[in-house]
Amino acid sequence: MITSITNKKVKNIVQLNKKAGQRRKEGVFIAEGIKMFLEAPDSYIQEVYVSESFLRSLGEGEKSKSTSVGEAATAVREKLKRCGYETANDDVFTKISDTQTPQGILCILKQFHYSFEDIMKKEGIPLFLMLESLQDPGNLGTIIRTGEGAGVTGVIMSKDTVDIYNPKTIRSTMGSVYRVPFLYVEDIVQTVEKLKRNGIQTYAAHLKGEKSYYQCDYRSGAAFLIGNEGNGLSAALAETADEYIKIPMKGEVESLNAAVSASLLVYEVTRQREGI
Amino acid sequence: MITSITNKKVKNIVQLNKKAGQRRKEGVFIAEGIKMFLEAPDSYIQEVYVSESFLRSLGEGEKSKSTSVGEAATAVREKLKRCGYETANDDVFTKISDTQTPQGILCILKQFHYSFEDIMKKEGIPLFLMLESLQDPGNLGTIIRTGEGAGVTGVIMSKDTVDIYNPKTIRSTMGSVYRVPFLYVEDIVQTVEKLKRNGIQTYAAHLKGEKSYYQCDYRSGAAFLIGNEGNGLSAALAETADEYIKIPMKGEVESLNAAVSASLLVYEVTRQREGI
Repeated sequence: MITSITNKKVKNIVQLNKKAGQRRKEGVFIAEGIKMFLEAPDSYIQEVYVSESFLRSLGEGEKSKSTSVGEAATAVREKLKRCGYETANDDVFTKISDTQTPQGILCILKQFHYSFEDIMKKEGIPLFLMLESLQDPGNLGTIIRTGEGAGVTGVIMSKDTVDIYNPKTIRSTMGSVYRVPFLYVEDIVQTVEKLKRNGIQTYAAHLKGEKSYYQCDYRSGAAFLIGNEGNGLSAALAETADEYIKIPMKGEVESLNAAVSASLLVYEVTRQREGI
Repeated sequence: MITSITNKKVKNIVQLNKKAGQRRKEGVFIAEGIKMFLEAPDSYIQEVYVSESFLRSLGEGEKSKSTSVGEAATAVREKLKRCGYETANDDVFTKISDTQTPQGILCILKQFHYSFEDIMKKEGIPLFLMLESLQDPGNLGTIIRTGEGAGVTGVIMSKDTVDIYNPKTIRSTMGSVYRVPFLYVEDIVQTVEKLKRNGIQTYAAHLKGEKSYYQCDYRSGAAFLIGNEGNGLSAALAETADEYIKIPMKGEVESLNAAVSASLLVYEVTRQREGI
């Protein structure tokens, strides 16, 4: 059992939570909580840490209704056996946790690597979200989560978009990060051009849009370009779009939250493709 | 100029940021940042605080492109003259700010008071969001913001919903809190019954829903019941609904973020009522 916060592994996890650079260097990220542990693909899990009291509550299993693990106890126990784990005392776990009320379990996973070609091979009518310079970790996570719900083909991000492996992003994805293909690209304008050459219609969510987003037909391949929270899309990226669309807004609202905007767009596609 | 963090006003503002009880007792809340200050109704503003360096950047006005105030300088100066203000040195301002990178301006405002009858009198086809036990301040703020964009009549919340005057909620509303009527109610089931007696159709967003949300007709008065982030709607509230609806989800997604769900529903109403 790890009992000291000066333990080398502890220090490393703290760094991995804080620094995108450290995560990139090691090619790993941290996923915390029971749900994130249970949904993590076994083959990507490198290390698992549990707190002493989590382990205890697990021993009590299904009986311990008071604990957060509750009915997931059996599944957690089996997965811990499969993947192995280290125990940390509660103080140490609080230190390595990125949350204010730690559930008592976290794992270190290998980062995912998708290529543009992999993503393009995915079945179904293409549906892409292209994110330019998004900065809010929670927004990105929520977009990945809604993206899975709406069945996006993939999420493509400009390289200055917030790190998808940020612990807050990972948490907000609620597990969707394990399943939605994504890609950071050097030159997002070039990637949009590539999508267009593949017959995909590209739509810029833009204040200059004349058509409301629900006035376009998304039943063939579509990609939405979503800009930074404060500044919207860059002129260079907006210009590559086949069409500008707007989300109509009443009152004095100037813009919607980026995750909300992206969600409205991809679910309008669901509505149109599933038919009424 | 306030130069000490032991100043009585400073201590009070810190409490107002932290404690819903204190805000309720004094009947006030705090709104921070340039946009929130500019959009605040004059008649609700009780006190305004600016930091020394904010005041300096304001003096440089439109010329100071490097500062956050930029082109808003004139409007801010005029409003400060109208409303009056106190200056705090930068250390004190950091203390009274609820943000990590304070913009240097905040105000104390009177709380809003709407009655059910006020809200029902609002023009247009009724559109309500009924929130039960929402706990995330950011979610609530985002819902208020999107709600204004979609033109909701009002947002009604069970009394155990997170405090709308939480600083994080206020910030996430991006000013919509000044304009969207809202109400906390003792018994939300009773309020839903009242809406129904007023001819409003009520829809529970629920995993048991058989119809997808875009398969219903919302062109007359509608209210959506949205449940807590973790547990969804209580059985008691869900049962009062005229209809259960679902947001269809692909992949392994079990639920969407509460603000995203609410946004999809109210914007589907916009789509139907604005017509294509």
